[in-house]
Amino acid sequence: MELDYTPAEEIERRLQKLRSEVSRRGWDAALIVHDVDLLYFSGTMQNALLFVPLDGGDLLMVKKHGERAQRESAVEQVIPLSSWNDLPSLIAERHGMIPKKMGIELDVLPAREYLRLQEIFAGVEIADSSSMIKNIRKIKSPYEIEQMKKAGEIGKTVYAEVRHVLKEGMTEIELAGILVAVAMRLGHQNYLRMRAFNAYAYSWHVLSGYTGGILSYIDAPMGGMGLSPSFPVGASQKRIKAHEPILIDFGICYNGYQVDETRVFSLGELPKQFKDAYLAARQIEDEIAAAARPGASCHELFRKGWEVAQGLGYEESFMGPPGHKTRFIGHGIGLEIDEYPFIAQGHDYPLESGMTFALEPKMVFTAEGAVGIENTFCVLEDGVEKLTPAEEELIEV
Amino acid sequence: MELDYTPAEEIERRLQKLRSEVSRRGWDAALIVHDVDLLYFSGTMQNALLFVPLDGGDLLMVKKHGERAQRESAVEQVIPLSSWNDLPSLIAERHGMIPKKMGIELDVLPAREYLRLQEIFAGVEIADSSSMIKNIRKIKSPYEIEQMKKAGEIGKTVYAEVRHVLKEGMTEIELAGILVAVAMRLGHQNYLRMRAFNAYAYSWHVLSGYTGGILSYIDAPMGGMGLSPSFPVGASQKRIKAHEPILIDFGICYNGYQVDETRVFSLGELPKQFKDAYLAARQIEDEIAAAARPGASCHELFRKGWEVAQGLGYEESFMGPPGHKTRFIGHGIGLEIDEYPFIAQGHDYPLESGMTFALEPKMVFTAEGAVGIENTFCVLEDGVEKLTPAEEELIEV
Repeated sequence: MELDYTPAEEIERRLQKLRSEVSRRGWDAALIVHDVDLLYFSGTMQNALLFVPLDGGDLLMVKKHGERAQRESAVEQVIPLSSWNDLPSLIAERHGMIPKKMGIELDVLPAREYLRLQEIFAGVEIADSSSMIKNIRKIKSPYEIEQMKKAGEIGKTVYAEVRHVLKEGMTEIELAGILVAVAMRLGHQNYLRMRAFNAYAYSWHVLSGYTGGILSYIDAPMGGMGLSPSFPVGASQKRIKAHEPILIDFGICYNGYQVDETRVFSLGELPKQFKDAYLAARQIEDEIAAAARPGASCHELFRKGWEVAQGLGYEESFMGPPGHKTRFIGHGIGLEIDEYPFIAQGHDYPLESGMTFALEPKMVFTAEGAVGIENTFCVLEDGVEKLTPAEEELIEV
Repeated sequence: MELDYTPAEEIERRLQKLRSEVSRRGWDAALIVHDVDLLYFSGTMQNALLFVPLDGGDLLMVKKHGERAQRESAVEQVIPLSSWNDLPSLIAERHGMIPKKMGIELDVLPAREYLRLQEIFAGVEIADSSSMIKNIRKIKSPYEIEQMKKAGEIGKTVYAEVRHVLKEGMTEIELAGILVAVAMRLGHQNYLRMRAFNAYAYSWHVLSGYTGGILSYIDAPMGGMGLSPSFPVGASQKRIKAHEPILIDFGICYNGYQVDETRVFSLGELPKQFKDAYLAARQIEDEIAAAARPGASCHELFRKGWEVAQGLGYEESFMGPPGHKTRFIGHGIGLEIDEYPFIAQGHDYPLESGMTFALEPKMVFTAEGAVGIENTFCVLEDGVEKLTPAEEELIEV
């Protein structure tokens, strides 16, 4: 059997864009060191570095495993690399020169490796390429959106399964595990990716009743209890009871591409307070989505969400308890879960066609529970398309 | 319900050890920035930095979430931090002075954050504390070994489940998902931790038949096919057939502490070639374990493993196909899966009481399959104790 490889024309388009941005900054080359960026620009995530000079002649230098990198990548020159120390000589040999100024992703490269590359490339000026690369990656191609739609289809099946497996007395983590198993069977890779330092993305954000009101280190309206201080977020050993909101925020990853979504369930009837809040969250999402289109300011969409929440009387619970509200309602998503754009305070840039983002209006009632909705959207020429087709009605089992 | 917090005396002992190592190097303080080290030295993984000066008066400075950090951590002074820019003034205010030389974990801190801390702490010399901290963490306390034993117990149940769920025609990833669900129900956190750059640990290393011979970027005897180039290791969509070796290498994490182990299964009888190789792997593990005790050289234990493998006629398949063999047979494990010690070529240091490591002799037959065993051990005063009690006989379902 064969895996799905990134099409060659996709890689060539991405590399062209990278070269044009490198040129615009007056640099001579980019050296791609972060494995997710490597996947994006070369098609492989093997242990390798990608050298992209202005004039083409890209070099994929592979420590391990060479044959696999060759098969997966559309980059023409795939050559072995035994040590980072050999980088300058390999580049000089193939490229005829060493760059004067080179971009590297300093937001993820560890300091020790940075200091080592400074020594290895003595005399070369190293610039931080991370925001440049994030800006290139924020516009998705039809191929990328197709992968995200496949992730969305997996999510639809996962959420449809909840009504069949949810039982009173099961723990949050038990329910989460069953859903992880369903998703994996369908091709979910069980490893979400987040770029920020000391941050993890995960699928098993299953919160029931009071755990929906527990805060943690993550910049999210609710953290959950988690299993221990070593994973202090998401599903816990708390048992699920009747008539409490069960919030399931389950990200899916297919072929490296992620979608994020949230739905609400209950065992037996959910008290009116939560039902109303869930409807309000859906209305907020609908109104933001209706205003989202190329040119719309992310900051203004964030404000719109707040205006609707306030108009509906949810100022206190919207996006976290008072004093602990998140400064975003949505986040870009793709190969990583913290991509551009952010539908957030102060993010005063416009949406563009091809951007993909998750919108997640949520309401937190401390000590009682949380509800909310989340969908992943793609920006089209004249609006947005939802990539996460799971049923949105509250499911009372 | 309450989570398990790290006992206060445990934290105090770890901080004493850290201070003594900082002093030995002539530094004035350590600033803990990596979240796993933060958990180890403070008991919490909230968004925080821990300042540990020579003379005590440790400061846990928390961005989010303060109350939770206070509850989880035995560090006395827990104070809010709104921005990293405030670090020098907070330290000066509470500690009376700014350190001259301070250790930071440069193996994980991103370059951009390193450059920022250099500006913020202008005039302070920053040293790399990572190997110092890894050396402190390599000796486990009875409390830590207790957590690892609980992980080992979860593993026993997970492996016992295989014979009930394994069916011909199911995919590797489907089987892996079912086992993940079993483990999560029992408290496995479904997120293993690895310290190295661009490296991931994961539980679903389920390889059947020819996928056991597929190599990938990881420094392991077998990579597996994985689901896509974006996760090119571990379980795949390949369907499991009768009479082929099914190698299940399933790490478990309980309360942050990990164990690693591998067992082999088959549907129907396994051909003699694989049965013999599995017995050989067990014999290699037994002989290394019998020689492992405080004072034994890790390099010599590695050589012993190779001698036994060669004596049994497995030179070609042991630890990977020719030309692609790993340079280790075992790796330290605890909060991270790539800790000291390494039972590896050139690692010429002695085992010490309290170290924990996984031993994984494995045999790879390219295009046919892989077998092997793996257990996690703790070094006692006069030998080693196995922390992973799952049944070791080959299971033919």
